[in-house]
Amino acid sequence: MADVSKISLNTATVKAQWSLRECIEGCARHGIRGIAPWRDVLHAMGIDEAARAIKDNGLRVTGLCRGGMFPATTAAVRKKALDDNYRAVDEALALGAECLILVVGGMPEGSKDIAGARSQVRDGIGQLLDYSRKHAMPLAIEPLHPMYAADRACVNTMSHANDLCDELGPGLGIAVDVYHVWWDPALEREIRRAGRDRLLAFHVCDWLVPTRDLLLDRGMMGDGIIDIPLIRTWMEREGYQGCYEVEIFSSEDWWKRDPDEVLNIVNARVASAV
Amino acid sequence: MADVSKISLNTATVKAQWSLRECIEGCARHGIRGIAPWRDVLHAMGIDEAARAIKDNGLRVTGLCRGGMFPATTAAVRKKALDDNYRAVDEALALGAECLILVVGGMPEGSKDIAGARSQVRDGIGQLLDYSRKHAMPLAIEPLHPMYAADRACVNTMSHANDLCDELGPGLGIAVDVYHVWWDPALEREIRRAGRDRLLAFHVCDWLVPTRDLLLDRGMMGDGIIDIPLIRTWMEREGYQGCYEVEIFSSEDWWKRDPDEVLNIVNARVASAV
Repeated sequence: MADVSKISLNTATVKAQWSLRECIEGCARHGIRGIAPWRDVLHAMGIDEAARAIKDNGLRVTGLCRGGMFPATTAAVRKKALDDNYRAVDEALALGAECLILVVGGMPEGSKDIAGARSQVRDGIGQLLDYSRKHAMPLAIEPLHPMYAADRACVNTMSHANDLCDELGPGLGIAVDVYHVWWDPALEREIRRAGRDRLLAFHVCDWLVPTRDLLLDRGMMGDGIIDIPLIRTWMEREGYQGCYEVEIFSSEDWWKRDPDEVLNIVNARVASAV
Repeated sequence: MADVSKISLNTATVKAQWSLRECIEGCARHGIRGIAPWRDVLHAMGIDEAARAIKDNGLRVTGLCRGGMFPATTAAVRKKALDDNYRAVDEALALGAECLILVVGGMPEGSKDIAGARSQVRDGIGQLLDYSRKHAMPLAIEPLHPMYAADRACVNTMSHANDLCDELGPGLGIAVDVYHVWWDPALEREIRRAGRDRLLAFHVCDWLVPTRDLLLDRGMMGDGIIDIPLIRTWMEREGYQGCYEVEIFSSEDWWKRDPDEVLNIVNARVASAV
């Protein structure tokens, strides 16, 4: 059974309805004890103000979304991306986040060189680690579904993320989002390979059949075809004790609902379908 | 350089415009020497009639699309699917096809058991091989992109297809469609692992950014981000000598154009972008 005291709300789930302040107050109201903000809503609220409100409400921050987006065609743009990643580490520290989520980036516009993009990702994470390690902020690579390989993240499997962790060493781990990895026949093996130290976050939602949009048609847990409890079991067998972070991009359904209704259903579905 | 004498037209590319007879005549008119029919247009024309017209026009049949769809919740439905696969083998033989393409099927409705579906796929292909081997008709597993894992094909990587070939033995190979496998960091290695004998077909189109629909928004070669010549080189290095089969599902673009224009562009793009 999923432990309902371990729910975390990723702010993307009510992105269309609520500011970060409303998310924080909503979590408190619904007994949700974790939160994972995106940087846009964090900046809108102000980092100090957000850190204070999160602390006042006793929430844990299961991750900051997001750093990454390393590949670029020029050194100047790569440098700019890296600087933004340093700021993301600082913000994660200010919030006391458990990790900084990395969506690593795809191929720069006009490029067909996915191997080159992957090489830039490795180098970019390596540089960022020099900074994040000093401040003890764990970086969590989030492998994204292969349908995002071109334009969002060219790390698309747990196996690839584990390879990067092997190569780049401590301070780096993985955020496992069931939406991105459920289909992978190597998933159980690669969760085991990652082991407790690398398993930094566990994101849940569901894969709908049919899926009408590549980006914004994710489902509430239980409404799709992912065996989420099975994957949770694999995580927890390795010693994962973190939250279940609920992250649902859904422009036509959940983003159109009353957010208090959404949080009621999140609470119910973590109990019944996670 | 791609060899333009090796173009094959998959009938799906002009599915909205042309019958199989029109496809056959269109290939002849445009100097295209291969064809790969889907079974719906084949049945509409009649198998004997189609076999005759294909032969009269000197076309090679680079594959019949498609068998597969093995998983089901009851033995009766599985048996029905297998019977249909036997008929597909017979039809492939009647056309002198170089292989029968297998789209293996996803999870049956209501199921969340992808491991179970994969096990049914293995068993189904095994049973079909008992028949296809007797008649020397090669079966080609087409690994589909992971975004189709739930409802179309639960074999989503070359690695998984190679594992099935290892397990099930001769008479079984792989159809490599760049659309489905371009993102895979293990692609070059797994093409090498497959080797000449297993590389039964090579399908080309392109991945568009953005992709607006999971099913019907594939691009013409050169319009997207796949490095097709690189993948072709990997295929040919292993000794692949078959055709480049052009298969483009495109409800909003290529299916709305004059099919003679489509074939002109196919010919030009195989020369410039494959």
